[in-house]
Amino acid sequence: MTTAAPASRCVGLIGLGAMGQGVARNLLRKGFKVHGCDLRPDARAALVREGGQACATPADLGERCGAVIVLVVNAGQTEAVLFGPGGVAAQLRPGSVVILSATTPPAFVEKLGERLAALGLLLLDAPVTGGVTGAAQGTLTLLTSGPEPAYAACEDVLAAISTRGFRFGTAHGLGSKAKVINQLLVGVQIAAAAEAMALGLREGVDPQLLYQALQSGAASSWAFSDRVPRMISPEPGAQTALDIFVKDLGLVLDTARASAFPTPLASTAYQMFAIAAAAGLGREDDSAVIRIFPGIGRPPAGAA
Amino acid sequence: MTTAAPASRCVGLIGLGAMGQGVARNLLRKGFKVHGCDLRPDARAALVREGGQACATPADLGERCGAVIVLVVNAGQTEAVLFGPGGVAAQLRPGSVVILSATTPPAFVEKLGERLAALGLLLLDAPVTGGVTGAAQGTLTLLTSGPEPAYAACEDVLAAISTRGFRFGTAHGLGSKAKVINQLLVGVQIAAAAEAMALGLREGVDPQLLYQALQSGAASSWAFSDRVPRMISPEPGAQTALDIFVKDLGLVLDTARASAFPTPLASTAYQMFAIAAAAGLGREDDSAVIRIFPGIGRPPAGAA
Repeated sequence: MTTAAPASRCVGLIGLGAMGQGVARNLLRKGFKVHGCDLRPDARAALVREGGQACATPADLGERCGAVIVLVVNAGQTEAVLFGPGGVAAQLRPGSVVILSATTPPAFVEKLGERLAALGLLLLDAPVTGGVTGAAQGTLTLLTSGPEPAYAACEDVLAAISTRGFRFGTAHGLGSKAKVINQLLVGVQIAAAAEAMALGLREGVDPQLLYQALQSGAASSWAFSDRVPRMISPEPGAQTALDIFVKDLGLVLDTARASAFPTPLASTAYQMFAIAAAAGLGREDDSAVIRIFPGIGRPPAGAA
Repeated sequence: MTTAAPASRCVGLIGLGAMGQGVARNLLRKGFKVHGCDLRPDARAALVREGGQACATPADLGERCGAVIVLVVNAGQTEAVLFGPGGVAAQLRPGSVVILSATTPPAFVEKLGERLAALGLLLLDAPVTGGVTGAAQGTLTLLTSGPEPAYAACEDVLAAISTRGFRFGTAHGLGSKAKVINQLLVGVQIAAAAEAMALGLREGVDPQLLYQALQSGAASSWAFSDRVPRMISPEPGAQTALDIFVKDLGLVLDTARASAFPTPLASTAYQMFAIAAAAGLGREDDSAVIRIFPGIGRPPAGAA
């Protein structure tokens, strides 16, 4: 992934959310032309301010770009931006590569590879981890799989947006399976952090002290360190959306059920996020899952 | 916790397992006299080789030591070494302190404080985390609570065996609650690591690559980093005992049930360890919990 980018190389970017903006900035910084699209006018305007070019529809990207990164939210949106009205797939030149970085079902990715191949197009299964920070700094981790020609068609792009790329094989879906398993762990660990802190609060253990004592030892996890401060803060803000884990733990369950494989903890964690979403917390920070525990509401604003 | 130890100060140590041996060595290194006892003759002999003195029964410690650390496995053993035949409680001089570092139910510790107070004795609730390594290096984390005089009676001892001491308050049981919550997280996270790796194996994702990709990102936890190599190794060895998590997650459930408080993930993880123990894996390393997943046996010895 060290190929230098030709100065004229154009990369399409569909989905200019927090992740997409960061990816765009890194591509521009490394000499790529970036054409991007998003339904939201303010997201398109932000890209133009960074030096990119905004397109009205995904189809417009296809005439210009030989590599298109899809960074939308889910499989439904991926389907729409590729094959819906104004979709890009029909416009791409044969040999172009679609880099699918949304979190979608592995089975969807497998079929997508066949559908794009029928149009002479390449697909790289390339979900990302590392969040908004990784996207902004160009340090995303890519969990990829796909045929060798798909890698060859976008190695320069991958190198520009990530510092760590894992190649899980030539079959589409393996990268997405790794991402699904990543989300299993993150989701269970956020829910476990909530359960632990809720029990501590119920039992009268000082939450700040509990957090400090547990966060660097055998109980530690990235999720615990990152989310607990928001769980026990009166003004946590919303850095993520709880609905994402309803979706992503749903993907874990779908993936496991397709193999009739048991996932007891992911199932339990899914129920916890679903209870929270059904209680109206879907658009809050995912740390709000702690509020499913009885008596463990958000501390009143202004409390210590 | 910086008081220098008087050269003649004697500390009793009940339970000379892997943790106890490490604690003994640090006390000796820092100038304390250590009198220890354990049912196993080889453990007593090891203490003597290190420069300590072995006692036949806990009662023998009480005549010599003003501070006694209890590092046995559970509440039943704690009860026995304090109050059973040959128990130490009746022999301790008034004002002596019992430092309870076993993992026991918070409610047991609360009552124990009252029982020892009736004998004129102090109790420090002081479970430890940091494992065998922390014990050997004197870097245990102590999760403590108790009345001020109990701390005053053993600050030099605490400083000798740990680098991090958290004080959760004056009430007995708070330290043990923090430890129970610690075990909730560790237990759930070991079980989650097993579930994640088992699903990956079922789905054909390369386990070594999956481990590398997930262990340093948002999915990371100490448990994942530490246990997964043993889960996917043909010769994992036994560094821990799975039965410990049947016990400790049982303590989590007992603690939560005493308050009728829900712990969905701890309950699920408990079932996973109980399934493993019922299948005969109780004395294996706790990473063997992965073997409850169908088709995910230990790889044959000699496999890659």
